[in-house]
Amino acid sequence: MAGRAARYDASGDFPEEDFADLRAAGLLGLMAPEQLGGAGASFADYTDVAIQLGSGAGATALIFNMHASVTGALAHTPDELVRQFGGAEGFFAFRDRVLKGAAEGALYAVAMSERGIGSRLSKVKTSYERTGSGFHISGAKTFVSGAGHADAYLVAARDKHSDEPKISYFLVPAGPGVEVQRTWDSLGMRATTSHDLHLEADVSEDALVGGIEGAALLLAQVMPQWLVASYAAVYVGVAQAVLRHGVEHLRERGLHTLPMVRARLGRADVQVAAAELVVREAARRVTDDPGSPETNRWVWRAKLVAGDTAAEVAFSVLEAAGASATRRGHPLERLYRDARCGALQPATSDVCADWLGASALGDNPDEARW
Amino acid sequence: MAGRAARYDASGDFPEEDFADLRAAGLLGLMAPEQLGGAGASFADYTDVAIQLGSGAGATALIFNMHASVTGALAHTPDELVRQFGGAEGFFAFRDRVLKGAAEGALYAVAMSERGIGSRLSKVKTSYERTGSGFHISGAKTFVSGAGHADAYLVAARDKHSDEPKISYFLVPAGPGVEVQRTWDSLGMRATTSHDLHLEADVSEDALVGGIEGAALLLAQVMPQWLVASYAAVYVGVAQAVLRHGVEHLRERGLHTLPMVRARLGRADVQVAAAELVVREAARRVTDDPGSPETNRWVWRAKLVAGDTAAEVAFSVLEAAGASATRRGHPLERLYRDARCGALQPATSDVCADWLGASALGDNPDEARW
Amino acid sequence: MAGRAARYDASGDFPEEDFADLRAAGLLGLMAPEQLGGAGASFADYTDVAIQLGSGAGATALIFNMHASVTGALAHTPDELVRQFGGAEGFFAFRDRVLKGAAEGALYAVAMSERGIGSRLSKVKTSYERTGSGFHISGAKTFVSGAGHADAYLVAARDKHSDEPKISYFLVPAGPGVEVQRTWDSLGMRATTSHDLHLEADVSEDALVGGIEGAALLLAQVMPQWLVASYAAVYVGVAQAVLRHGVEHLRERGLHTLPMVRARLGRADVQVAAAELVVREAARRVTDDPGSPETNRWVWRAKLVAGDTAAEVAFSVLEAAGASATRRGHPLERLYRDARCGALQPATSDVCADWLGASALGDNPDEARW
Amino acid sequence: MAGRAARYDASGDFPEEDFADLRAAGLLGLMAPEQLGGAGASFADYTDVAIQLGSGAGATALIFNMHASVTGALAHTPDELVRQFGGAEGFFAFRDRVLKGAAEGALYAVAMSERGIGSRLSKVKTSYERTGSGFHISGAKTFVSGAGHADAYLVAARDKHSDEPKISYFLVPAGPGVEVQRTWDSLGMRATTSHDLHLEADVSEDALVGGIEGAALLLAQVMPQWLVASYAAVYVGVAQAVLRHGVEHLRERGLHTLPMVRARLGRADVQVAAAELVVREAARRVTDDPGSPETNRWVWRAKLVAGDTAAEVAFSVLEAAGASATRRGHPLERLYRDARCGALQPATSDVCADWLGASALGDNPDEARW
Repeated sequence: MAGRAARYDASGDFPEEDFADLRAAGLLGLMAPEQLGGAGASFADYTDVAIQLGSGAGATALIFNMHASVTGALAHTPDELVRQFGGAEGFFAFRDRVLKGAAEGALYAVAMSERGIGSRLSKVKTSYERTGSGFHISGAKTFVSGAGHADAYLVAARDKHSDEPKISYFLVPAGPGVEVQRTWDSLGMRATTSHDLHLEADVSEDALVGGIEGAALLLAQVMPQWLVASYAAVYVGVAQAVLRHGVEHLRERGLHTLPMVRARLGRADVQVAAAELVVREAARRVTDDPGSPETNRWVWRAKLVAGDTAAEVAFSVLEAAGASATRRGHPLERLYRDARCGALQPATSDVCADWLGASALGDNPDEARW
Repeated sequence: MAGRAARYDASGDFPEEDFADLRAAGLLGLMAPEQLGGAGASFADYTDVAIQLGSGAGATALIFNMHASVTGALAHTPDELVRQFGGAEGFFAFRDRVLKGAAEGALYAVAMSERGIGSRLSKVKTSYERTGSGFHISGAKTFVSGAGHADAYLVAARDKHSDEPKISYFLVPAGPGVEVQRTWDSLGMRATTSHDLHLEADVSEDALVGGIEGAALLLAQVMPQWLVASYAAVYVGVAQAVLRHGVEHLRERGLHTLPMVRARLGRADVQVAAAELVVREAARRVTDDPGSPETNRWVWRAKLVAGDTAAEVAFSVLEAAGASATRRGHPLERLYRDARCGALQPATSDVCADWLGASALGDNPDEARW
Repeated sequence: MAGRAARYDASGDFPEEDFADLRAAGLLGLMAPEQLGGAGASFADYTDVAIQLGSGAGATALIFNMHASVTGALAHTPDELVRQFGGAEGFFAFRDRVLKGAAEGALYAVAMSERGIGSRLSKVKTSYERTGSGFHISGAKTFVSGAGHADAYLVAARDKHSDEPKISYFLVPAGPGVEVQRTWDSLGMRATTSHDLHLEADVSEDALVGGIEGAALLLAQVMPQWLVASYAAVYVGVAQAVLRHGVEHLRERGLHTLPMVRARLGRADVQVAAAELVVREAARRVTDDPGSPETNRWVWRAKLVAGDTAAEVAFSVLEAAGASATRRGHPLERLYRDARCGALQPATSDVCADWLGASALGDNPDEARW
Repeated sequence: MAGRAARYDASGDFPEEDFADLRAAGLLGLMAPEQLGGAGASFADYTDVAIQLGSGAGATALIFNMHASVTGALAHTPDELVRQFGGAEGFFAFRDRVLKGAAEGALYAVAMSERGIGSRLSKVKTSYERTGSGFHISGAKTFVSGAGHADAYLVAARDKHSDEPKISYFLVPAGPGVEVQRTWDSLGMRATTSHDLHLEADVSEDALVGGIEGAALLLAQVMPQWLVASYAAVYVGVAQAVLRHGVEHLRERGLHTLPMVRARLGRADVQVAAAELVVREAARRVTDDPGSPETNRWVWRAKLVAGDTAAEVAFSVLEAAGASATRRGHPLERLYRDARCGALQPATSDVCADWLGASALGDNPDEARW
């Protein structure tokens, strides 16, 4: 995949070959339990895979991350929680169907963001209403990685007829009423094809995730890892790629003995090593103790540190490498652009810092967050 | 020009229309004295123009900077210095011819860099030797902004038959033996068309700048402003553009009241204001007291602070602006890439810091520099 | 003074000898007009003096700054403004009396801050009420530089009987009812003797500054230089001292040729040079065009950049100098502590960044500021 | 101990009470094996203790670190290594004697540094020569934490009669010929009493560590953890204390809801969390796989990240806390000074960055290091 990354970056096309490989390797079923044909991976396992993918092909890793978020969140939603919502029967059937699909090669994408609301779930304008046979969903989504290539989209929408912000999730199959508008042409992570999605879709009753309405906001607080920090592993991989290609370039050019080059690489090395530890610590805690306050702090830390580290390391290593590494086609040129995107993806670094500051200072960091 | 910048950035083409405008406005003669049809501008005047150009169209400003370097260095070389080298007659005729050409619309470019030598003039591998009718110049140059569109190129070359590094300048007309290889396809400043130049050119006797051989290294120390710091003004302009487009974007999106956005913009504002002062102070001193040790310190400061400021401000303001500003075509997306290039252009920021540190610590900063 | 700085830092005593020298040199009358026996200095002149003082003895320079603020603000208050408030007669007599006093060697201090209100003038709790013969002032002040050694204190107090925040200034002579509580024992700038002041003072009618009540908040917006940025020059001086002593130490120890040392010093050099330009630009504008929106932006920039620069440069140069420079008595040890205080003095750097961000983003930065 | 830290900082006295407590708790025997009466701790165990101590009383933790370095390095020197040097018999007896002493309450200090050589072991000027009954050691040491309070000092000295730099270790008992010169009066970590030591001491044969001459340089490369990174844990503790006291101060003052305060605390939180992970990862690897190239990289990373994190976090949190936290006696005032010392202790952060850069770039980082 690393060998194809430059090409997909240049064209901005969906990395078909990468996903053919992932599908063939059974990795679309990574998060599905073994009894449904998957690998039964934990969040820590996912993190391991995502770092490796991100180190080779960042955009591919981000699309994969969205798929893993859908399947992982489903696979790991605690049964008790589902039962609290009185949704057990429907939910379990839904979950098994979706995860079995993934294990068989289906690709899922996430359609959460909308223009002007950032990632504030409670502000979602896409709406749904009941029809005779299910629901009608209407609205527009943005930043939908994998748009046009996914088999179904996880869509956050509000109940059109509720005064309260009642936000529900739907898994909307690609097809009529789901139109991709090719708006994505971006600084970095170009091959994610994160286009806009226009929805005027009629879906059946069982597209409502788990048959439960209004659970979206709660889930965001209970399982922030998939909304907040699953990107983090990808950007650790990107940062590692910066180091790897930086070292290669600097040795080739004979610049590796310059004191300032050494200083830049030394500081970059420790930053990347630290970021990886933070992301893996968060992953380990999500795996062992999901949803606890301390685990959630690590989730936010992971997002902040991974996004900032990738961007800062790319900034500094490109400076060490010099103008010759800014030619298009040079891996550092692409990585410089890719690396900048992590801190900008929600939750942005400034938002993470605010959450963590509130938490450190003893306030409720989730208050008015989503 | 600001309105065309996105288009030229996308295509990577030479900004023909911008140069038609500059030519029409008489700006190619900016540095030529009035008696030769020019504007007789000082370095401070140039700085003023370059900041404004850079604020609208960075790549155009960089090409213009190269032209201004050739014409400005010629126009401002002190007569005494020329006489010291025993080159008065030839030099003054040469100078007048070139500057008159500029005033009439000729565009000059600089062909100094070579692969693997950075900007170390003394390491230049392009060579020259005398022929019956003048000189033969042979070699390859890189990062030649305006390549393919200039009327002549200022080429640094070494005497093929001298054991000492005897480096001379030639003004080589575009034409046979001067071949452009279209290698430029870069992260930022894409419309500079800074392609490679292959030289197997026979030039007449009067192509030797001023009829003086071996003066290149000395000139670098005596007039570092044109080699080191004329870029600086361009990047102050770029940094100002980042602020301007950042404010516009943030107000449009209604993000301007967020405390972290305000903090980022406030700190960017002061950084840009400070960089402009440093660059203008250097320009004022170059104008009033060229070549003095204190003036030269300001020249190196200007280069360091302008390159770093543009890059850092673009980094931070893009983070404030968020993912929506990373779409290609958005001014901040382009400026983010353009702004990164300043610190990488020779003298790089790390080289400037080393020069300034040596100077501050009482050592000779020019020792073994070029 | 530079020679005494270590001693006054160690003891935390008021720098008696320094002020004897300043008095002897006529510098207490710096801001008083010539016809009253002073030097008739502009804000730019003050800045020049303050940089030099700060470079030798930071704490002395800060006390002097407070005195200059009182005398300078009085000397430079535009007559029109006074007339607008209907206070001409009283004000001019008051002003002349105070400035003549300064020219004759009187020292004034400022008693503005109070515990828990930072520098929010509108929150001042110290109150005043009319008595038969003048006013009674009651309250407690903190961070009163020069406390115990000033001849009179400029005190901000609120009208005890007004519901609106009606804040007025009084010049309260040292004496009965003005008690110094020796609380100052600080990380840095130790010799400022910025103790607490307890006030239960009866003052005569003419202690009310200019005979005008309720003008304090307006003055803060109209002449922010004395509240916001007169510190700035002192910290530029401190930053210059860091460079000077850093170079001396590094050469003595033979560390000046280490590449990382050179890089640190080079970057520090340019930061200090830039900060000085910003502070002098602000001073020039205050002198030429006081109170204009653009001038005020420079005032806030000056405060931000000077405080941050001093602290950052001291941080980095101490790191270059190494553990041997952390012994008490070493100038870098003291300067490291002194330099940290600038950004913490109101307006703090974070407050300045917020003000500048609001201004850059087109909002009213003074809204709800004081 | 946390309760006493302010007092010992103010006086600069050795923390007698803290060491009485440590002795009573058996912690002086922490690194001694259980069969000799100790706790048989690993490097990871030590790290745990040092973080906790550092979080309460940094100076005490640093003295303890020196003691742990002596006892830990002895306890963990691999038997094979000793045998390679042909020193088994003598070494094992020596080791047992020293460790048993520690378990019984003896305190050891390290006397390695000398003026003007930093921590370059090969440059040591203190010399030794054989006498009839043992050795005579002559020279001067600096930065000897615990000087005047240790029972014996680990002294690095060179063979006076060898042309090669043959550096050996001696354990020199306090007593005649070992004179403490009270030079320590420092910015931070004041209670370490890191005074100078003047040596004109006659020691018996068995003071030569392990009976082996010339092993010092090799040991530095084989077991860098005790020379390079055992400080690191202390500074993680210091950084944690900064957070703890910062939160306490900010809540008390009601500043905890300010956005910039939250942002500072959030970023500090993640920096401290990351530093702790790096230090613990290094400790885990030293414990499980001591001396391997990958382990040693983590050792250098730990030193760099801990020193920088403590200093940067203290810098930022003090700025959040404001001027009221700069009064002497306030924990943040002390921590600000203490925290600055980590990056300056050898190996300094710049040296660590250079080592890590060389290693990342594929060069031998230990070449010409000691």
